[in-house]
Parts: sequence; C-alpha cells; structure tokens
Amino acid sequence: MSDADLWRELGQQLRVDAVRASAKAASGHPTSSMSAADLAAVLLAAHFRYDYDQPKDPRNDRLVFSKGHASPLVYGLFRAAGVISDDEFMTYRQFGSRLEGHPTPVLPWVDVATGSLGQGLPIGVGMALAARRLDQTSARMWVICGDSEMAEGSMWEAAEHAAFYELDNLTAIIDVNRLGQRGETMHGWDLSSYSDRLRAFGWKAIEIDGHDVEEIHAAYRDAESTSGKPTAIVARTIKGKGYSKVENQPGWHGKAISSEDVEAALEEMGGIRNIKVDVPMPDAPDPHRFEPSGGDWPAYELGSKVATRKAYGEALAALGGDRGDVVVLDGEVSNSTFAEIFRDAHPERYFEMYIAEQQMVAAAVGMQVLGWKPFCSTFAAFLSRAYDFARMGAVSRATLRLCGSHAGVSIGEDGPSQMGLEDLAEFRAIQGSTVLYPCDGNQTAALVRAMADVDGISYLRTTRADTPVIYEPGGDFPVGGSRTLREGDDVTIVAAGITLHEALEAAETLEGEGIGARVVDCYSVKPIDAETLRAAGTPIVTAEDHWAEGGLGEAVLAALADVEDHPRVVTLAVRELPHSGKPAELLAAAGIDAEHIADAARRLVRETSRV
Amino acid sequence: MSDADLWRELGQQLRVDAVRASAKAASGHPTSSMSAADLAAVLLAAHFRYDYDQPKDPRNDRLVFSKGHASPLVYGLFRAAGVISDDEFMTYRQFGSRLEGHPTPVLPWVDVATGSLGQGLPIGVGMALAARRLDQTSARMWVICGDSEMAEGSMWEAAEHAAFYELDNLTAIIDVNRLGQRGETMHGWDLSSYSDRLRAFGWKAIEIDGHDVEEIHAAYRDAESTSGKPTAIVARTIKGKGYSKVENQPGWHGKAISSEDVEAALEEMGGIRNIKVDVPMPDAPDPHRFEPSGGDWPAYELGSKVATRKAYGEALAALGGDRGDVVVLDGEVSNSTFAEIFRDAHPERYFEMYIAEQQMVAAAVGMQVLGWKPFCSTFAAFLSRAYDFARMGAVSRATLRLCGSHAGVSIGEDGPSQMGLEDLAEFRAIQGSTVLYPCDGNQTAALVRAMADVDGISYLRTTRADTPVIYEPGGDFPVGGSRTLREGDDVTIVAAGITLHEALEAAETLEGEGIGARVVDCYSVKPIDAETLRAAGTPIVTAEDHWAEGGLGEAVLAALADVEDHPRVVTLAVRELPHSGKPAELLAAAGIDAEHIADAARRLVRETSRV
Repeated sequence: MSDADLWRELGQQLRVDAVRASAKAASGHPTSSMSAADLAAVLLAAHFRYDYDQPKDPRNDRLVFSKGHASPLVYGLFRAAGVISDDEFMTYRQFGSRLEGHPTPVLPWVDVATGSLGQGLPIGVGMALAARRLDQTSARMWVICGDSEMAEGSMWEAAEHAAFYELDNLTAIIDVNRLGQRGETMHGWDLSSYSDRLRAFGWKAIEIDGHDVEEIHAAYRDAESTSGKPTAIVARTIKGKGYSKVENQPGWHGKAISSEDVEAALEEMGGIRNIKVDVPMPDAPDPHRFEPSGGDWPAYELGSKVATRKAYGEALAALGGDRGDVVVLDGEVSNSTFAEIFRDAHPERYFEMYIAEQQMVAAAVGMQVLGWKPFCSTFAAFLSRAYDFARMGAVSRATLRLCGSHAGVSIGEDGPSQMGLEDLAEFRAIQGSTVLYPCDGNQTAALVRAMADVDGISYLRTTRADTPVIYEPGGDFPVGGSRTLREGDDVTIVAAGITLHEALEAAETLEGEGIGARVVDCYSVKPIDAETLRAAGTPIVTAEDHWAEGGLGEAVLAALADVEDHPRVVTLAVRELPHSGKPAELLAAAGIDAEHIADAARRLVRETSRV
Repeated sequence: MSDADLWRELGQQLRVDAVRASAKAASGHPTSSMSAADLAAVLLAAHFRYDYDQPKDPRNDRLVFSKGHASPLVYGLFRAAGVISDDEFMTYRQFGSRLEGHPTPVLPWVDVATGSLGQGLPIGVGMALAARRLDQTSARMWVICGDSEMAEGSMWEAAEHAAFYELDNLTAIIDVNRLGQRGETMHGWDLSSYSDRLRAFGWKAIEIDGHDVEEIHAAYRDAESTSGKPTAIVARTIKGKGYSKVENQPGWHGKAISSEDVEAALEEMGGIRNIKVDVPMPDAPDPHRFEPSGGDWPAYELGSKVATRKAYGEALAALGGDRGDVVVLDGEVSNSTFAEIFRDAHPERYFEMYIAEQQMVAAAVGMQVLGWKPFCSTFAAFLSRAYDFARMGAVSRATLRLCGSHAGVSIGEDGPSQMGLEDLAEFRAIQGSTVLYPCDGNQTAALVRAMADVDGISYLRTTRADTPVIYEPGGDFPVGGSRTLREGDDVTIVAAGITLHEALEAAETLEGEGIGARVVDCYSVKPIDAETLRAAGTPIVTAEDHWAEGGLGEAVLAALADVEDHPRVVTLAVRELPHSGKPAELLAAAGIDAEHIADAARRLVRETSRV
C-alpha cells in the first residue's frame, strides 16, 4: 500500500471508529471527528514523533485537540497507535472509563483537558514557547482547532503571541467544516477569512482541501520547514465526511449515529479497520536545563514596612535562584506585581505576556505540561479575565501558581475597576485549589517557597500598600495552617492580609477596655485551619477586604458548619460598591478597619455575655 | 480663531487639565490622557452630538473610553462641555468625588465603567448593534482605545462582530502612543500592525498622525461617510505629548507630574484655558420601538417533565411577546440553552454572538445603556469566560440577565469541561447580584418574568435534564423567597434545582423511617431567604450540584452565621473532579443524590438527638 493509500485508509478507520464509539455511547460528536480524520491520520502516520511509554518526555511532539469535542478522534488515534485496546475504545463516555466525553489527562497521552473552546491553541503557544525558549528542543506542537472556536478572542491572543515569539515549532490545523453547533459559522467555507487574518497577525497560512491526504502531507512538510513564524493550515473539510446521510448537514453536531444506522454508515465507509501506526520516537536533543544560581532569600526586619507584592517579587527571584525549573509570566504589569524582580534576575525564564491574561494562564498550563513550574501574575481583578482557563486548568490536573496583586479596596484611588474583590471566591471554587493570603513580607516569602511544591491551582493574594512586618524572617507557614497572634478569651478575630493589621489594632483597643481578643491570622484560606477555628470557644469576628460572598468569612463558616456548639460569627466584608479614595478612607467606608472590627467584637461580647 | 486653531487649543486645554488634576490628586494617568487629547478635542468640537441634559437619550452619540485610565481626559471633556465646574474637576480621585480614578457611571455622562482594558470596544459594539438594529437611529458610537489593550482577545472578538454586523456607526480610535505600563507594546509605532489586522477582519482602517487636528478631522469625516463596515482610526501619538520632560519616556505610566514640576509643565503648554464647547444636540430620528405581540406564557402540567433550560427558552419567548424591550443574545448554543425559542419568535430582537462569551456579555452591557433589557445565555461553565465582564458590569451599574445552562455534574456524559460547578460562587461574588436556581418549569417561567424587573446583574441557573414539574403554573416565586415543600421537625433539607428533587425523594425515604424532614426549595440563592432558614429549628442538610465553595451551602451558612442557637449544618456538594457518566451515576458519585442526602440527614438526627 502506498503511503497515501495508508493515510486514506487510516482516515476511514478513524471515521468508522468515531461513529461506532459514539453510537455505542449514544452521545458524543462523531461528525466533528469525521471532518478532521484525514488531517489527524496524515499527522500520526507521517509527521508525529512521540514515545507513548514516556508521555511526559519533553522531547516528544505534542498534539492538542483544541476542538476537544472531537474526542472520538482523539481516542481513535490512541487505538491506531496501539495504546488502547478496542475493548477499552468502546467504553467511550461510560462511567469509570478513561475515555471521557471530552479528553482529560486521565489518559496519560492527553496533556491537557479541552472542551472549553478556544483554549487549545493558547495552551499550544505555551508548549511551543517552553520547547523553544526553555527546553530548546526541536519538538513540534500541533493543534487541531475548530473553525467555530476562531470566534474566541483567546485564539487571537494566541495568534498574536505565537507570531511575536516567532514560534515556528507551532502548527495550527484549522478544521473548517463550516458548521458550528447550531448552524453555519460566521465565515462558512471562506478559507481566506481565516488565512487573511492569520497572515495579518504574522503567520504563514496554507489553504488546503482537508480530505486530500497528499495536500495535507505537503502542507505539514511546509509547516515543518518554515522558520521564524508559526504556520496555520486552513483546511476545507466536510462535517460528517464519509457517511452521506450526515455529510455537511446541519443538526448533526453532538449527535451520535443512531443504532439502526450504524451498520449502513460503517458499510459506506468500508467497515472496521485495524491499522496500527508505528509512531517514531522523538529525535530532539536532550532538553536544556537551567542551573540553580543560588542567591539570598529576602528577610524583612520586624517593624519595617514592605508591600507583600514586593516581597512576592523578591521571593520569586530567590526561588528562581534555588530552582532552575521555575518560570514566570506576567500580564504587562510586572512593575506593579513586582514580577520584574524575577525578570531582572532570570531574564531567560521570564515571559512577558502583555495584556492578555487568558494567554498568560494558558501558556502556563502549556509550560507545566513540559515539566516547568510557572508562576503567573497580574492584578487580582484581572485574573477574572482568565477564570475559565484556571477552571479548565484544574480539569487538566495542571499545577499552576497564580498571584493576584492589588487586592481589595485598600488599593485606594484607582477605584473599583482595579480592586480584586472576588478573587478569593473565584479561586476557592476551583477543584483542589490552594488559596493563600499573606499579611507581611516574611510570610509572603515563606508562602512563595511553599507554593513551588503545591500541586494543583494555587493562588496567592498580595496587597498594594506597604504593611508592617510582624513575623521574623524564616518562619514556617504551612499550607493549611494559621497563626494565633494574640490570645484572648472573650472574642476571636479572624483576618488575613491587610485586615490582619486592622485586627491587631482592634485587639489592642479592646484590651484597653478589658476585652480579651484572640487574633488568628488565617493566611491559608484554603485549605483552612479548621481545627484552630473549631477550638476557638468564643464568638468570632471575621474581617476581609473582599466581597462577603465566597471569601474568608464563608470559609470560616464552612469550617464551623457542623460543630455542636457553634459560636456566633459576625462577618465583616465589603458589601457596597467602593469608590476612589485613600486606603484608610476606603477600609473605613467598607466597615473593615480596626474601628469597625472593634465595634463588631464589642457588640458580640456584650450580646453573648448577656445571654 | 479658525476651527483648527480652536481644536489645537482645546487639545492643549485637555492636556493642561490632565496634568493639573492628577498632580493635585498625586496619582492618575496624565501621560495617557495627553496622547489622546487632540483625538478627543476634535471629536468633541466638530463631530460629537449629545444632549448633556438627557444622557440616556438613545439618539445621542456615545463616547466610550476603552482606555479608562485616561480618566483625566474624560473629565476634561466634561469640563470643556461645561457640565462640571473647575472646582469639581479638581476633586479628581478624592474620596466622595464623582471623578473616580477610572470613569464610572456615578457621573451621568459616563455610560459604562472602564479600567479593565479590552472592554470598551466590545461594549461599543453592543451600543452600535442596538443603535443599528433595535433603535434604528443614526447615533454614532466612538471608542477611544489604547494600543496596549489591543493584545486582549476581547478586542478581536469586537473586531470580528463589528465587521460581521457591518457596524458602520462604530468608530474605534486607537491611540498608538507606543508605551504600555511597563515598557513598549508588542508593535510600538508600527501602525500597520493594527491596520493590517483590522482590515483583515473587515474594517476600514485609516492611519494618521494623532496630533494633527486636520488629519484627525478628515479621518472622522471619512469614518462618518463610510458605509457597510466599521472604521478604525489608527493614530500615531506621543505619550505625555505637550510636556517635554515626559514625552515618549518610559516610566511615566500612571504617574502624576510632581507638584514642583506642574508649573513648568503648564507653562510649556501655554497655561490654563477655559474653552467651552457647545456640543450640538443629536439629530437622529426617534428610536424604533417593538410593539408587544402578546402570546401565552408556558404552563407545565404537574407531574410532567421538562428541562428548566427548555422552560427558560419558552418563558423568554413569552416575555418577548409581553414586552418590546427584551432582547436576547446567545453564544452559539441556542439549541442547548433554548434561547432559539425566543429567536424563532422574535428574530429581530435576537443576536447570535457565536462562540465569543466576552463579546456577548459586553454587547449586553452596551445594549442596556440604550435602554434595552438583554438576556444572555450559554453553558454555565462558559460564562466563566466572561467573568471579568460581569464583574465590571456591576461597576457599570448595568442591569444584565445571564442564564447558564448545563449546570453541574447532572449534565452527564460530556464530562467536567462542560459542567458549570463554580457559577453560583462566581455570580454570588458580584456586587448587588441576584442568583436564581429553579427546579421546575413553572418556577423557571416565574423567575424569568421576575428577572425582567431586577436591577443589577442577575443570574439564572438551568439544568440540562428533564425534571418533574412540582409547582402549579402561575405560582409566585419572589426574589429572596423560598418554598417549604414538606414539613418535618427532625431535620431540614435545603436544596435547589436538580438536588431539590433528590431532597424530596430523601424526605420520602426518611418519613418511612419515622424521621420528619422539612424540605426547603431555596430557589433564590442570593438574596437568600434568611428568615426561613433562621427559623428552621432543626439541624440542616444542604445539597447542591456545585463545588462546596461559594454556592448554596455557604449561602445558607452565611444566613445563619450569627444566630444564637446555631443548628448543625452538613453541606453536601461536589468535592472531587467528576467524570463522564450517566446523570444518576454522577449525582451518586458526588454524594448529592437522594441516598446521600438521606444518609446525612439520618446521621445528623442521630447525632443531635443523642446529645
């Protein structure tokens, strides 16, 4: 059999497999798989280099299905590569199967979960950046994209960054099958809509017939030999290609072929095949590694003042000295987040992602696939722009470290658009996440160090203003812990970050009135130190520079939910839309400064002792 | 004075004003205002039509500062238009001033808050769509954009939609001052980077010197006379233009001129001016209105089954019949969210936003500025893509209605990427929001009707599966209410949406064991019916198809936080990453089905009665 015949046969196999697996499951997206089957077949059979026994090997090429709903095609490729059996293949979408509705890293050869459209290409940019700038290998990143998802802005963030960073190791394969979920896309089969845009962004773009295996092969070779820019292969395809009943028909998105039609479909496509492709091993050289350069960790003097955002930058630079695998990305605000301190210390491991938060988080997801340890930073408020990427990061079992600076009303004059007031809620509501909120420089440094070894999505919240250093350098602040800074038997004040200092001042005031206030620094918002909270034995006041919903206060309430002698808890938080003003004015206006904390504590002590 | 001389003088006035207001505040972004001053001056003096006494008039032109940090320029224009005094102008950024750090609708002539970059242009697309397709006026939308923010994907969603909808009433003015916050942008002064991209997206693009008032004027005229496509004016400008010390210098973003330099700066720019511009009234015709067409509200028979997402679509179509001001946007999933039922009933008020959730929400923000009542829908999971837009919507005091379908693990086979499991946390953590979660068709219809009159950001969560109809048609479900569906003295089960049905089944089981379980349908998650919950008088089990953080369980805990006799509360929620499977399998695996609810209730009753 000629190469071209083999590729055609493999394409048919992938289509047949997509039909029968989804028919068995009675759900899934066979037609979206059928359009891209030839594109995938030629890639696997003639271009892809991958060690299926060592999927984490950074020398591997990588294939990301940005159109994750084409999961039957993803799994069909694994079957063709001989790494899953036909029996397992047919468990598609069943409870307990590794073959989920959309691909997830439950399978070792799936690097990232896709299914939220518009994410695969920006993640591919991160992989390509890592391969080019960090590993410095010749591994190639291939991303199969849907045409519908080109409407997502994140795809154009990716287009911009891929061209800017001259990622000629990245190929986007756009499966232009014309039909989205509910009808035609904006551009139908007008391939030039895509290629003109991509060329304007600095890409090479090649228009082909996505069912002509020789054209596909030539385009891939062209992509492989193009230097200085990424390549997009804009392929005209037919949704449902191969089974005439569904070819190019609306109403067939996300719909399995009915059981009575399966036989006819398989017959039209020439029946089940069992082609096995022997994918060659990667031939990239060993990846580059950065030697630890050493350097001192920051240590702040007790009683001095430093912004936790500054301590973040200084600790990050020190961490980069300790470990060669730490990399940093920032969204064009490195002089505010202080990621610039890392950039200046380790320029080759710093990535400027400009004002493109989605691409920033996606790039980090891609880089961690290749074994790097990314930290990303921007204003806490602007991480909300990338929330879907963080959410999907958890589904990808990715380990990412995010830092949001400029949290809360305490930023002052810039006003509410710049105030992160929902970030604790956002990041607590990510599966398996860790949420940390330091109040001083030494604690920040300790938490940055701890984050390097935390799995999953971890989030560090930093403060704009300089705040007093209250902990000795070198202290231990385990994730899940807390620090009791003052003892007191009448009331417990739970705070973190900026409000911790307000809490200490309130406790001082209360002491002068004969009220004993314990102060707990709940720097680990998730996991929270439930044991300490449950042992409080007094009424509790919580105070946070965050909306009342989903933040520290509710985390405390959740820790106490089912205790038998539940203390009364008053949660102080931001409840009205803040304005511009000085930090102290805004903390007071929000009712979360020392005076309001003391008031709440006083009232609670009075009311509970009265009982 | 010639027109051109006046424009030049006005440009200098705006620069001088930017310098002195921010110097007084000792913060703010004068240099970013100075680059765009001539662009703004010519617009105000020679092109803009606006009734400052009737800022809500849909016949007005509108000017959005997508680069919201140029707020001194925004306020300088209001001073030049004679609507704020110099005294008020100089209160910039002070606590209590209407002149906030970034513009907000605290000032009646600011339509939307900006400051999170990349939002103004997509909002402008919404305004232009409303003017063109709904109001059918000749009002023009002008958006001043920064060059840095062109890196945000949302700007390219806007570029795509503006061209697709042929919005020739929209002009984007791109202030290419070369410098971002921390250094040069990706493209510096390469104007063609922007114009080539925009042309490829279908725009007219005009490159000009942004300090040549005659070139600016000609470009605006060109934009006004262009039909069938939007126009971008790509203007080469100098950051800090006018004051030689800061012109085109890095390190001057977001920095006020120091008090000792202000005099020199003002002198170089020719001192304070007091030009007043008499802005002409709009000459657009009266806006088009859609007559209510009437039509029946859906009514579902008790005991039948219907998905709440289907009821959403049917209710929405009925609402559109009752009211001519309701408009609907959907993100290319209208056959899943059932927004297609509205589309078919009222095609002229339906907007297909394709897979561009940021643009969808931004367009809704723009449309509500012009007085329309938008509803937006997509999968709940994918609203996370637009979270920053919803967050900023609250700062804009926007009234938006969002519907997220396919909530929770109960969607089944599609797997975790498609499961909205953080949406309640997201939307609860938006200031002034309303969060609703119906369990049956008739309740859904009532809540859709209620949402039409709710101010702020309201969110409705719908379910994929058909669920039993348990309420009579026409029932009243006030926002902030709840329904107690069963009485019982031993334990209270609080649920909403899909878990409400599980709760009823659990209560039935428990009754057979002699345990009296009250079941509360907490369909209004925010505001929550605290009164009912606080009166429970029994231990409580909450059950939700959502992560444990920030959802129904924590909302219940917050309502109970400071009660004196706090009941024990067990919160059942999704805690591990779900997989694909059948809905019932997944509800069981997550521990939120009837059996797990009954177990938790049983244990709680046993443990509390033992005490």
